[in-house]
Amino acid sequence: MSDEDPSDSGWFEGTDREDAEAVATAIRGESADAPFDWPTRAVETGFADDENDYYSLLHGATMRVTREAIREREQSDDQQLKRTIRAMDDCQRVANELAERVSEWAKSKREDAGAGVEYTRQLADEDDADESLVSLACRVRDLDDEAADLRRHVERTAPEVAPNLSALAGPVLAARLVALAGGLEALARKPAGTVQVLGAEEALFAHLRGHAPSPKHGVIYAHEAVQGTHPEHRGSAARALAGKLTIAARVDHYSGERKPELDAQLAERIDRIQEREVE
Amino acid sequence: MSDEDPSDSGWFEGTDREDAEAVATAIRGESADAPFDWPTRAVETGFADDENDYYSLLHGATMRVTREAIREREQSDDQQLKRTIRAMDDCQRVANELAERVSEWAKSKREDAGAGVEYTRQLADEDDADESLVSLACRVRDLDDEAADLRRHVERTAPEVAPNLSALAGPVLAARLVALAGGLEALARKPAGTVQVLGAEEALFAHLRGHAPSPKHGVIYAHEAVQGTHPEHRGSAARALAGKLTIAARVDHYSGERKPELDAQLAERIDRIQEREVE
Repeated sequence: MSDEDPSDSGWFEGTDREDAEAVATAIRGESADAPFDWPTRAVETGFADDENDYYSLLHGATMRVTREAIREREQSDDQQLKRTIRAMDDCQRVANELAERVSEWAKSKREDAGAGVEYTRQLADEDDADESLVSLACRVRDLDDEAADLRRHVERTAPEVAPNLSALAGPVLAARLVALAGGLEALARKPAGTVQVLGAEEALFAHLRGHAPSPKHGVIYAHEAVQGTHPEHRGSAARALAGKLTIAARVDHYSGERKPELDAQLAERIDRIQEREVE
Repeated sequence: MSDEDPSDSGWFEGTDREDAEAVATAIRGESADAPFDWPTRAVETGFADDENDYYSLLHGATMRVTREAIREREQSDDQQLKRTIRAMDDCQRVANELAERVSEWAKSKREDAGAGVEYTRQLADEDDADESLVSLACRVRDLDDEAADLRRHVERTAPEVAPNLSALAGPVLAARLVALAGGLEALARKPAGTVQVLGAEEALFAHLRGHAPSPKHGVIYAHEAVQGTHPEHRGSAARALAGKLTIAARVDHYSGERKPELDAQLAERIDRIQEREVE
């Protein structure tokens, strides 16, 4: 009904009421500038039997449209990036947990047993009588490989989803920020001060309850701008970094264009902070 | 020095002090009925240069012996059974955790996504475009397979390690009790009341702090004697079961002989409890 005066037709004008998909498509993207007595119109044009019938049709159609919109949103690249990095973190975590179990077990059997995923990978390559132990070690190796595969996937897709954020933060940290915010749009809407402490929620809530100093940084701690700055000035570095990352996320979400000047601005800002004197 | 008067010789009599293994073997299993001035004797016989030298040799030898004893104990069958069931539980737990992640991810991509390890196994068999998702599902399937392999290993070895306990409790529950106690000997030394609540430590400590009723059962909850009894009489059933399991563990540790009469006694006792009237 887009081109006509909305009062001339109903929301479902020209669709077959038995065809749920067509009805949903008809309602999606439609809009009207003014309210109008749609139920009466639908009954008058013979589309609905009565007002209840009209509302029941409308309910069905809007629910369908909502489900479709949610699915489309879920399938969007930033949501898939979020899933990928969460899966990567899970694989890494359980690989570490199981490696600890393998190492404990190995120590009960042999003097030269080491620890960690690295030792477990060595053990997995051994052709050994300790069948169960080596088999478990192989699973740990597979999980570690899976985490590496997922990391490569993140490294490939993050620059497509958020080019500026990935350039400034590196793809893995960019993906982590998107995941923590719940999506690129959600990240773009957050103030810089929130982005600065994403991933430090526990410390932040402890601070809000009055138990602890305010956290200086969350996951952006991993960034070289923070790592490479003397602890005394890390708060400043984290603040400057979070500010630029927030701008990058906004550019990525609202325009999608790559702005290399952001990288230079961040580098210059961090250089100046790192040049400050330390007492 | 076993056959001689201990005061006639030193602890290391007749061994080469440079041969650490021989010195350790010499000291292991030796005993003396009365104290004696061993350091002086060692210096007199020319084995040690002085008292400090003697104690330093003794320290090295006893440390070595202790390490060997620990290793032997760790390699014992009950300790290996403990490791196996812990690894099995770990695999099952992380398979469930990762299956949850897979299911979340799958739901963002397809309408018909299910949940749990079972759905993840189905997904792993699919030849699909969602490469990362299916690859993660395969890891979950492998972990689930690993847990099943370890369960078979437990089912095979528990009856060898603890024949009576395995006959009464089933091999998996028997292994779980051995693991919770820290070994078969440790389990055999525990009173029945402790065996009854093994695995319910949290509830027990809450009770001891006065916050909660005393737990009726720990992992023995899984046994059919408890499961098949009306909740009103489950405390009695758990007590009776724990009593018999404790006896079984003691027979297994101290004699190792299979006593089929224990099974009959337990069955009879549980039958009588289950026949009790329920209010």
